[in-house]
Amino acid sequence: MPATVKNAPKRATAQSMAKKQREISISEFFTKNRHLLGFDSPAKALLTTIKEAVDNSLDACEEAGILPDILIEIIPVEVKKNGNGDKTLTLEPEDEKPKKKGAVAPGKEEQYRVVVQDNGPGIVREQIPKIFGKLLYGSKFHSLKQSRGQQGIGISAAGMYGQLTTGKPVVIYSRTQDQDIGHRFELMLDMKKNEPVIKKDEEVNWEPVHGTRVEIELTGSYKRGQHSVDTYLEQTAVANPHIRLTYRNPRGDEMIYSRAAAELPIQAKEIKPHPYGVELGILMRMLKDTKQRNISGFLRKEFCKVGPKACATVVETAGFTPKKSTRHMEQVDVKNLMDAINSTKIPNPPTDCLAPIGEELVLAGLKQRFEADFYTSVSRPPSVYRGNPFQIEVGLAYGGDIPADKLAQVLRFANRVPLLYQASACAVHKSVLSNNWRSYGMQQSRGALPTGPLIIFVHMSSVWVPFTSESKEAVAHYPEIIKEIKLALQEAGRHLQRYIRRRVREKDALKKQSYIQKYIPHIGIALQEILALEESEKEEIIATLTDTLERSRKL
Amino acid sequence: MPATVKNAPKRATAQSMAKKQREISISEFFTKNRHLLGFDSPAKALLTTIKEAVDNSLDACEEAGILPDILIEIIPVEVKKNGNGDKTLTLEPEDEKPKKKGAVAPGKEEQYRVVVQDNGPGIVREQIPKIFGKLLYGSKFHSLKQSRGQQGIGISAAGMYGQLTTGKPVVIYSRTQDQDIGHRFELMLDMKKNEPVIKKDEEVNWEPVHGTRVEIELTGSYKRGQHSVDTYLEQTAVANPHIRLTYRNPRGDEMIYSRAAAELPIQAKEIKPHPYGVELGILMRMLKDTKQRNISGFLRKEFCKVGPKACATVVETAGFTPKKSTRHMEQVDVKNLMDAINSTKIPNPPTDCLAPIGEELVLAGLKQRFEADFYTSVSRPPSVYRGNPFQIEVGLAYGGDIPADKLAQVLRFANRVPLLYQASACAVHKSVLSNNWRSYGMQQSRGALPTGPLIIFVHMSSVWVPFTSESKEAVAHYPEIIKEIKLALQEAGRHLQRYIRRRVREKDALKKQSYIQKYIPHIGIALQEILALEESEKEEIIATLTDTLERSRKL
Repeated sequence: MPATVKNAPKRATAQSMAKKQREISISEFFTKNRHLLGFDSPAKALLTTIKEAVDNSLDACEEAGILPDILIEIIPVEVKKNGNGDKTLTLEPEDEKPKKKGAVAPGKEEQYRVVVQDNGPGIVREQIPKIFGKLLYGSKFHSLKQSRGQQGIGISAAGMYGQLTTGKPVVIYSRTQDQDIGHRFELMLDMKKNEPVIKKDEEVNWEPVHGTRVEIELTGSYKRGQHSVDTYLEQTAVANPHIRLTYRNPRGDEMIYSRAAAELPIQAKEIKPHPYGVELGILMRMLKDTKQRNISGFLRKEFCKVGPKACATVVETAGFTPKKSTRHMEQVDVKNLMDAINSTKIPNPPTDCLAPIGEELVLAGLKQRFEADFYTSVSRPPSVYRGNPFQIEVGLAYGGDIPADKLAQVLRFANRVPLLYQASACAVHKSVLSNNWRSYGMQQSRGALPTGPLIIFVHMSSVWVPFTSESKEAVAHYPEIIKEIKLALQEAGRHLQRYIRRRVREKDALKKQSYIQKYIPHIGIALQEILALEESEKEEIIATLTDTLERSRKL
Repeated sequence: MPATVKNAPKRATAQSMAKKQREISISEFFTKNRHLLGFDSPAKALLTTIKEAVDNSLDACEEAGILPDILIEIIPVEVKKNGNGDKTLTLEPEDEKPKKKGAVAPGKEEQYRVVVQDNGPGIVREQIPKIFGKLLYGSKFHSLKQSRGQQGIGISAAGMYGQLTTGKPVVIYSRTQDQDIGHRFELMLDMKKNEPVIKKDEEVNWEPVHGTRVEIELTGSYKRGQHSVDTYLEQTAVANPHIRLTYRNPRGDEMIYSRAAAELPIQAKEIKPHPYGVELGILMRMLKDTKQRNISGFLRKEFCKVGPKACATVVETAGFTPKKSTRHMEQVDVKNLMDAINSTKIPNPPTDCLAPIGEELVLAGLKQRFEADFYTSVSRPPSVYRGNPFQIEVGLAYGGDIPADKLAQVLRFANRVPLLYQASACAVHKSVLSNNWRSYGMQQSRGALPTGPLIIFVHMSSVWVPFTSESKEAVAHYPEIIKEIKLALQEAGRHLQRYIRRRVREKDALKKQSYIQKYIPHIGIALQEILALEESEKEEIIATLTDTLERSRKL
């Protein structure tokens, strides 16, 4: 059967193919697959860079208990060309003020220097090169706790993109509370090795008492509209009322988003994994890595919510003794242990690892942004997917100034970060689409969003948001997550339904009332003529009839 | 300003945060982010595993000039439980026949052994562990050439998923043409180091003269329907008429897809990158890595389509001498070089790196699968995004047995691989949605697919398909790609428009004709009575009138 084609051109063999097989570095991988990180167009690259830097700043401030005060600047960089064959690169001096309003055509591909500066705790000097010059390095990946960043890729990828498009290093200033002086680094990323290359490392006088400033020069495109930096910062302010943002766009306009809440959100706590989410392979690895010598210690210390009773039940169900060593367990033993865990009742994971926005603040956010006739919000109780606690919040705004002839607008947030791209790939979108909005009195075409004056706000908070790609633009379609979003939408939808029905009823009532007011007098006149009534008798009959009809209408 | 909150609980400092910052291994990253690789549900995991193995087999066969003959088996593995506290794991013996039809409830989460065996060239023994036991290892990433696989992640990720869910190693048999004997490996993946762990490495008597067989045991779910293994294999056969597939599902049913074409597709050639796609950072790295000593050699050898004239123009425009050394070029020099490249006319990249299906075979594929009244297909000329050649093909099937009251069905293919998931995230979906189908005479609601008896087939072939995630389910929204898909849809749409218009015209004509046939005889009788005509005169008048009206109708 193995039919080799005759007269084929020189084809490969197992040996010739083996010569081409080699390792791919993670930086090479992401350079080629930059759309995975959100750098597939100049406009998106600009947004992603700012988003990654701001997310990191907010995370660091909150973790250190500091009310965030962030400066964001997008400074146009002019690349001058002096005639043919004699091109030189002239950069704007670092301290020159940005151009006056309207100097840069929006939407054009340009070179920008992006600056994000925070009042956070600063970064210890030794860590700066790896954090900004190495992909897959960070503190959040291994911790189960709600935070904006989670992969250890974002900011170093932004620097890599800047390097790719302009050849310029990333510049970092940082100062920690205990230092009298700041540090300034210029960093490149070695793409074959995925390691930082330090171009400059110097001490500088830097005014802030503590904080971090990152400057990335990149090819980008500054646009307004739905997917813009402006929209991202605006929505970030809505979902984070405790922050203060100062934003200077490339035209030199300055916008300030002031603090609407003087307190930090409750700090999310780090948790251990829940035993229900663990898989055989992970369990095998955990047993190999643990410092606990016996199985009881392992279950109690490496997981959350395993109390003495649950621990004893698991151990007994698996057919072990409590002191069984964690070393040298066979695949069959581990399988028994996993089955025992899954057949034992263990409480749900703690939810203090989550910091939801809260129904009140969701309402407040919507009211601040949209002039509507009706608002509602729903916070679901925390739930669990693959051992990870998460919580869904939904808000609706209806009527008022919201356009009535367009599709409803969906605002998506994950851990307080607005998601602007890839709406249709998102679990939120899918849940909204598959909800039956007609039953609430909305219009909806098959396979489309509902049509009408409606804003749908959905927030997922979790210790681990499963994004569909590293660029963190859409939530993956986990059934548990979709179910929770749907339940929240349905609850909020029922509030909306009551409002729409009441409005329809009121309209009907008004119509009936107007009929009564219109026809009763004529009936009065007709009765007067037929029965030859006095004027006063007629008035009396009219009053009685109106009263009776009104009462029956109200029933 | 740096406002530290009073009475805050113990918060982190730069120092405490630094202690938690560490490196993340690529395998840990993908274990946690498994949905990026297509393992977010048991049903999808089963499909992804088979898809990755089959894609690799087809690539290897074609590269070696062998007509592919692939065996795919999904064998249920029973995990027996013998009462409480005494659970043992009993596996089906390796050679036992799969259960008879209906033995396994479809849709239930089960354990399966997936087997994919090909008649390809085999794999050199030393390479087997890395190919199946290390993420980001392979031959296709660094080569610009149309192939199904491209990342060096897929099959090792499938093995890793199997290991995570069942703790079992991947089993590989392979034999190359020059060997008298086969090799058998059992491999695990060390997830902290991203390196293969060889559990067994033995020589075995293995019947095939050459080929590879991979066996992965995993937790999965076998389902029918749109996203199923069955659909994937069926569509794979449509887009690859030169392959032969034998497929045994978990129920033990055997399906054979025979070869419809006896010849391999034209072999796609590997190309060098095109200079237009290159970015500053990449150019800097290429200059650092090149073996060419002077700039002219560099331009001629490292890129495609740079002839002597274009090379001279670029060198002159950049203000260099042709012998300028490639060593120690400053960022400014490289920037000049890039500007010179972009201002010089260089022909488009060669297109023999692409192997499109062809208009005829697209039509044939559609005709084989769908009973329709009308078929059309369009192959666009090759185009380029970010220096990567690509080509779009579109086919439409309309009417016939296709349901008229549902949304149109979109079949998406990339490099001949069917894409079953994440339709709404795909550039194809976006292009179809934003096309105006009403102008062709179809129904379409705002924001929805067209409604009607329509199948839309879209194939993208490219040396590098930019997928939205590593699971290769949707094409990223590059403007150049969306533009080409739209142009192809519009061209095919115009064919459809002509057909629908003609049908509408024919219907109208038929209606008019039926009017003529209905009323002319009555007019004849009336005239006969009024003018007292003979029977023959009446017949003559009827004939003349019919003739005149028919002629005027046809104009």
